[in-house]
Amino acid sequence: MIALVDTAADDPLAPSDQLPLKQLAAKLFDELFRRTADGAGVTRECYAEGENRAIELYREFSGANGFRCWFDAGANLVVSMPHDDGSEPALILSSHADSVPQGGNFDGAAGIIAGLLCLVRLKRESIRPPVPVRVLAMRGEEGAFYGRGEVGSRSLFGRLDPKDLDARRRGTGRTLREAMMAAAIDVAKIERGERLIDPSQFRGYLELHIEQAPVMIARNLSTAIVCGIRGNVRHRKVVCRGEAGHSGAVPRSLRRDPVFAVSDLLMRMDAHWSALLDRGLDLVVTTGIIGTDPKDHAISRIADAVSFSFEIRSQSRETIETVYELFRSECCSVSDQRGVTFEFDDRILSEPALMDKGIIAKLVQAAKKLGLPGELIASGAGHDAAIFGNAGIPSGMIFVRNQNGSHNPREAMDLDDFMDGVNLMFTAVVSGF
Amino acid sequence: MIALVDTAADDPLAPSDQLPLKQLAAKLFDELFRRTADGAGVTRECYAEGENRAIELYREFSGANGFRCWFDAGANLVVSMPHDDGSEPALILSSHADSVPQGGNFDGAAGIIAGLLCLVRLKRESIRPPVPVRVLAMRGEEGAFYGRGEVGSRSLFGRLDPKDLDARRRGTGRTLREAMMAAAIDVAKIERGERLIDPSQFRGYLELHIEQAPVMIARNLSTAIVCGIRGNVRHRKVVCRGEAGHSGAVPRSLRRDPVFAVSDLLMRMDAHWSALLDRGLDLVVTTGIIGTDPKDHAISRIADAVSFSFEIRSQSRETIETVYELFRSECCSVSDQRGVTFEFDDRILSEPALMDKGIIAKLVQAAKKLGLPGELIASGAGHDAAIFGNAGIPSGMIFVRNQNGSHNPREAMDLDDFMDGVNLMFTAVVSGF
Repeated sequence: MIALVDTAADDPLAPSDQLPLKQLAAKLFDELFRRTADGAGVTRECYAEGENRAIELYREFSGANGFRCWFDAGANLVVSMPHDDGSEPALILSSHADSVPQGGNFDGAAGIIAGLLCLVRLKRESIRPPVPVRVLAMRGEEGAFYGRGEVGSRSLFGRLDPKDLDARRRGTGRTLREAMMAAAIDVAKIERGERLIDPSQFRGYLELHIEQAPVMIARNLSTAIVCGIRGNVRHRKVVCRGEAGHSGAVPRSLRRDPVFAVSDLLMRMDAHWSALLDRGLDLVVTTGIIGTDPKDHAISRIADAVSFSFEIRSQSRETIETVYELFRSECCSVSDQRGVTFEFDDRILSEPALMDKGIIAKLVQAAKKLGLPGELIASGAGHDAAIFGNAGIPSGMIFVRNQNGSHNPREAMDLDDFMDGVNLMFTAVVSGF
Repeated sequence: MIALVDTAADDPLAPSDQLPLKQLAAKLFDELFRRTADGAGVTRECYAEGENRAIELYREFSGANGFRCWFDAGANLVVSMPHDDGSEPALILSSHADSVPQGGNFDGAAGIIAGLLCLVRLKRESIRPPVPVRVLAMRGEEGAFYGRGEVGSRSLFGRLDPKDLDARRRGTGRTLREAMMAAAIDVAKIERGERLIDPSQFRGYLELHIEQAPVMIARNLSTAIVCGIRGNVRHRKVVCRGEAGHSGAVPRSLRRDPVFAVSDLLMRMDAHWSALLDRGLDLVVTTGIIGTDPKDHAISRIADAVSFSFEIRSQSRETIETVYELFRSECCSVSDQRGVTFEFDDRILSEPALMDKGIIAKLVQAAKKLGLPGELIASGAGHDAAIFGNAGIPSGMIFVRNQNGSHNPREAMDLDDFMDGVNLMFTAVVSGF
């Protein structure tokens, strides 16, 4: 713990009783970037070196500020106030310590640093909130390395599919099981579907996160309150099969063209999407992958097949299911009308999660008190908060405005916006949970 | 010339005064398949071994039947009646001796064998038609090996782009120039844009070919008369650029999704296509290639770009140009409405060709006389007949019904349909051109 030795003013790990919180935040973000930089961005691989470095920084900072630290059964870092021995159920301020490869500095880190700043302020102002407040630096939230997101939180609640332990890291082929075992996690329990922790130790879960969408930029909101986290249903690969033919020789009436068929399908779904938004439903529809087969496609050849991915997201399980039914129905209709067939791989469902109404109300009240925007928006991306929420723990999220999306080095959060989010969090925390 | 020695009844090269023409045709097709077979299909590479073998078979057959043979300046085989020394302008019965790799046996060969059978019948029935009739077995019609079709006919009329001589054969890298020089063709003339032959030696050009579309199957026509050969305008690659983003996080109103934009564009063109067909225009529209970038596309990522090919074909230059204008106009409209941009590579135009009205009339008359269908259909694929027609030579084509398209080993022409086509050709030929 270098910090305990070197107490220079620009050392973020020095005890920092006088430093304004915004400057402290800047120093922490800078130091985190320095320790995990990888080219233009940062890489904090889950259950591996980058994530360990980030967690070590949080631990050093906490120690330097006199907080207590320990690791839970999922190897996540827990930080508590000096008087809190962890025996009472607590309100958790959390986010994830990991990142995607060459990602941005704020994704995940903003929520942990916000929590730590709240503890610093509680200590500075000698406030003892009605329930203990702890920071939880989660591991394994990003799906980039093993193809499955929220691995850390799912495993805490016995909700990690045991098959996911066999997932191999892209590049090296190391399994997630090996990586978790190296972090001293009891994977046998995970395989048996057992919880690693007792959920009754959580009175609530509050996560601050940068927004990964351009909505708050467009609506000029520095902070927002998350009303729900969208779930999704996906097909990684749908194949639309038609009939190959010479482009000049087959007239329209005899064509079974899968490129036009998939275009037709997507425009039908686009029209439904637009109509359902007009009626106030929460919905996004995406085909991120599409392609004819490079082995045999040609300018003058009607393609025999097109593959594409399809994803529906909504905060409402009902919307997800009914729009999925609409999708399958339109596939049938396009099949009939254009003489093509559709083949579907496994349907993958991730449950949506609504945030806790009580926490939302507290955050709205706090925003009003601070003169901050208190608008509710949906999170399109998945978060650990959805896993905590679906495990029965009252959960909430604060979004902070951010440019250029996330999962890239160009993400850009203004520190003033961040401090608005920290104030919102602190104000809600001291109002009592 | 084995044929002159071995005169067994099942030898297709034996003088064949008694053999019914249909049996003779069957033997010729079988022998041709035997000599050029390549797996399930045939390979008759232009200016190379497979094409040479096919031409050698036609030469042996012609010699065995007492016809005269010579090669023109394009190394194409010319076959004339015994009394015809080639000094008078002639009606040409023609098609191409080459094939695509692993193609079907009938593509090209049907027209040459039909012409040879007409000569056999003229000889058997001692008919001397008003103008000399010759068979021309053309080289280099398929674009498969060097990426440019009708190389043989274009070079005859000084219309081969000299750049095409530098085209390299897929696989080996041999240039078309090298291949043509090996066939003793004067490529310097081609490079200077000079004709290899005098077009006044042609009184007309008549080509029988299998249909490469399923139109005649659908309409139950054994034979048909081609009214025109579609030209086309193409872009090999159009790039539609939008903005990448997290699929769950970016709402519809803020999306700039190129996958939906290209689908929108194609559905607009599909609607125009349908409307223009209803008004009687000749048109096909194809996107044979489409794809997001495998380097960065993902199920949960709104793609930043989609690439696609686009092709418009019609017998009418006016239709090609106006529909192309419509395409560019719809690209602008989609750009405005969906916040994307379109980038276009070079526009490539191949001129359409209408078949000669006099030849069409003669073929319609002959069909009526024989009780065969005399319906006119457009050729979607390119043919040497388009090059001869655009060189000012009255040109016509007969299509014979064929299953499963062409350029694959599954093409299937019924020999009875073929003989209908041969009878149609013969009847038109003896009616005098």
